[in-house]
Amino acid sequence: MSNGDVFVGEMIGTAILILFGAGVCAAVTLRYSKARASGWVVIAFGWGFGVLAGAYTAAPLSGGHLNPAVTLGIAVDTGEWGQVWVYVLGQFAGAMLGAVLCYLTYFAQFRANVRETGTTEGTADEPVPTLGVFATIPEIRNPVANLMTEIIATVGLVLPVLAFGLTEGLGESGTLVLIVALLVVGIGLSLGGPTGYAINPARDLGPRIVHSVLPIPDKGTSDWGYAWIPVAGPLIGGTLAGLVYNAAF
Amino acid sequence: MSNGDVFVGEMIGTAILILFGAGVCAAVTLRYSKARASGWVVIAFGWGFGVLAGAYTAAPLSGGHLNPAVTLGIAVDTGEWGQVWVYVLGQFAGAMLGAVLCYLTYFAQFRANVRETGTTEGTADEPVPTLGVFATIPEIRNPVANLMTEIIATVGLVLPVLAFGLTEGLGESGTLVLIVALLVVGIGLSLGGPTGYAINPARDLGPRIVHSVLPIPDKGTSDWGYAWIPVAGPLIGGTLAGLVYNAAF
Amino acid sequence: MSNGDVFVGEMIGTAILILFGAGVCAAVTLRYSKARASGWVVIAFGWGFGVLAGAYTAAPLSGGHLNPAVTLGIAVDTGEWGQVWVYVLGQFAGAMLGAVLCYLTYFAQFRANVRETGTTEGTADEPVPTLGVFATIPEIRNPVANLMTEIIATVGLVLPVLAFGLTEGLGESGTLVLIVALLVVGIGLSLGGPTGYAINPARDLGPRIVHSVLPIPDKGTSDWGYAWIPVAGPLIGGTLAGLVYNAAF
Amino acid sequence: MSNGDVFVGEMIGTAILILFGAGVCAAVTLRYSKARASGWVVIAFGWGFGVLAGAYTAAPLSGGHLNPAVTLGIAVDTGEWGQVWVYVLGQFAGAMLGAVLCYLTYFAQFRANVRETGTTEGTADEPVPTLGVFATIPEIRNPVANLMTEIIATVGLVLPVLAFGLTEGLGESGTLVLIVALLVVGIGLSLGGPTGYAINPARDLGPRIVHSVLPIPDKGTSDWGYAWIPVAGPLIGGTLAGLVYNAAF
Repeated sequence: MSNGDVFVGEMIGTAILILFGAGVCAAVTLRYSKARASGWVVIAFGWGFGVLAGAYTAAPLSGGHLNPAVTLGIAVDTGEWGQVWVYVLGQFAGAMLGAVLCYLTYFAQFRANVRETGTTEGTADEPVPTLGVFATIPEIRNPVANLMTEIIATVGLVLPVLAFGLTEGLGESGTLVLIVALLVVGIGLSLGGPTGYAINPARDLGPRIVHSVLPIPDKGTSDWGYAWIPVAGPLIGGTLAGLVYNAAF
Repeated sequence: MSNGDVFVGEMIGTAILILFGAGVCAAVTLRYSKARASGWVVIAFGWGFGVLAGAYTAAPLSGGHLNPAVTLGIAVDTGEWGQVWVYVLGQFAGAMLGAVLCYLTYFAQFRANVRETGTTEGTADEPVPTLGVFATIPEIRNPVANLMTEIIATVGLVLPVLAFGLTEGLGESGTLVLIVALLVVGIGLSLGGPTGYAINPARDLGPRIVHSVLPIPDKGTSDWGYAWIPVAGPLIGGTLAGLVYNAAF
Repeated sequence: MSNGDVFVGEMIGTAILILFGAGVCAAVTLRYSKARASGWVVIAFGWGFGVLAGAYTAAPLSGGHLNPAVTLGIAVDTGEWGQVWVYVLGQFAGAMLGAVLCYLTYFAQFRANVRETGTTEGTADEPVPTLGVFATIPEIRNPVANLMTEIIATVGLVLPVLAFGLTEGLGESGTLVLIVALLVVGIGLSLGGPTGYAINPARDLGPRIVHSVLPIPDKGTSDWGYAWIPVAGPLIGGTLAGLVYNAAF
Repeated sequence: MSNGDVFVGEMIGTAILILFGAGVCAAVTLRYSKARASGWVVIAFGWGFGVLAGAYTAAPLSGGHLNPAVTLGIAVDTGEWGQVWVYVLGQFAGAMLGAVLCYLTYFAQFRANVRETGTTEGTADEPVPTLGVFATIPEIRNPVANLMTEIIATVGLVLPVLAFGLTEGLGESGTLVLIVALLVVGIGLSLGGPTGYAINPARDLGPRIVHSVLPIPDKGTSDWGYAWIPVAGPLIGGTLAGLVYNAAF
């Protein structure tokens, strides 16, 4: 695949992934959303079907990694590092584009997310913190534990993704991406509790940059102190998965 | 495919889509429904599996577009406009038929949706507004933002649908429509929060006409002032998706 | 297929369907169940995956109809009536066996479903009506509307099932039953609100007989006055679907 | 398949299964989890997609049983007992490894699961019992009923799994494991209410041992009095399923 196809494929695919993924976080957390407070099952399926939409779209151009940790795991396994930088550039560009598209989709909701004085004397609705739409926030702030969670969850993504390619028929029947998408739903349901499962450096860092730049009213902190964990954890996890896969299969 | 097959296929398929889609809105919002207040996840899967049911049924006759925005995106990409009018006619006829079938399915619920005086003195159950069963209503009324939401969400539908056809094996294994159906679930979960995701002019306008005509008690407004947005947004989005697809793939 | 294979296949398959379907109703409604009050989405997916489990199990022996309305729709379409009676006998035998298995699975829950005096003076937990585990109960009792609902919902099942067979590749890839199972999830989500979607005479009448016979404490009525509707509605719907399919495809 | 491949495949696959399965129980029950109290649908899909992740990963090495009851059912059916011990050893090793990985993923949550004095005078948050993350606990303690539930639920797993292999195309298209995973979701939704559906001796006993050994604060009982039921029930159920399958198919 040419560098141009890889870049365009990863950019479009990751933009769709983040549009859907950040979108479902906006849908569940922002005020005046029809899906408000609809729960964790909606979050997990929204991200998973974002993978489905983005990866099937990108597949004919770039194979549809959409995640530097996946690209890294494949490179560690195969030893082919030539196009890794093109993949990662496309993924970050797409993640930032997708975050902007999510902002535009929920434009009226972001504008309405300001302090409102209620009708009952003395009450007021506080704005919802908006970072959670764009990037992950740990429930308990503990760098060692948070890093460990992201490493294990990323191994739980990349090791199966590498192994799925060995199942005869999945590729030929075109259903391989569907299985990966349901795997991502599973990771969200099962391993997302502590940190919100970044498991993808582009998914977290790209939209966090967009959050810090966009003129969102009352947007709150972009929490840069935590930003290294959802980058480092997935990169370590992707490398580990490539090594385990190489040893065991 | 003959004009007759296309018309019948799109009409039956879109009728099933709207029967399921309007049906799930009735199931979740009307009083005396077993699925009452069962949440956004039910709405999104109900519409998605309506696409599955309708598009697989229509596929052998017409390919199963069920949506003028999809038909438009394909025409913009391929340059073949000859049968577009047959597709769109079948889609609108089917959408109106499906809305009537939904009304009949929930006939007793619609009849019971009137003001009831409660047992406790002074309380009364107000009828639920019924337009939401048939057509979309924005959470925040803002024409520019609402239009933008519908455009982006429709690109998020039509661009992947066009690209899915490139994945080898999906067509041969017969699972292509399944992937499209899960994509529609994802759009609902992620991008439906602001406007209720029409993403289909026939899906919104057809049932809105039926709503304004049917003798539903206490039915409330058909909100014609908003009706142009879920028509214009999806048509713009479908065109954009066709252009982006043509340029990138 | 031999009569013996058809009978055994339909009996085992329908027993699994009802074990799962009645099981999920028990799971959501009975006291002391871990899934208690887990909502309509659980009901709809439970029944759908019951179809998946039962129909894939029965498929090699009998094709996996599991439903007289499906058998009838196929007979109306093809004109082959010779084995219809074997299918229907197997379906009813299986439905009754499955209902007994569900009773045994939730044996302790059924035994605990009796009037309990609470710890707070004057309070008492009433037993949950148990018929809903075995058979359908309308939200609003209106024979004409209830019958209409069951007819339309059954057409929404049988017409797509007949048409799915035309999609190239679904049969060859073995995913046809999966699509039917998700269709049944969709019918539950969208069309189950008014009557609880019998859409299958064996599914309702078989377990209703078992309910009236089993020694369940405080079991409440078996509601025989309603029992004809979930038999007649699906039979009319299956016939209609066969006729529409024959005319349109 | 060599003994080494079988052991490694079953160990990795079962570790992934338990990481996801115990993980989703931690996600839903522990304090300070983003998925806290998200309901039974999350539990059932989390376990099912754990099967998907683990079995597809193990499939190329060992076929992906991940469950002594499945291995036993296959052995009863085929009469081939030579590698049963390797499968079971790998499954138990993997189940214990997966339980440790779940503990590490939710490390901060387990540490925070201690008695906390609330801000309001006299209130205190009690620690959540942690055994439910690792092993099953019946809602009503009744050995005969609990054993019966586990036997029937395991037949509901193993009999369909054996029969699925007869459906032409499922293996070739690579979607067989997907169907098994959705079957496991269905068992959870429908048959998990009374005992929490062990249906797998390794799934219950392995993590229970880990629970009794790990230094979890305020971890509560490991409930060894109940431990024989989720071992004996699935083994009986797997044997029964193999016998029924052999007789009927």
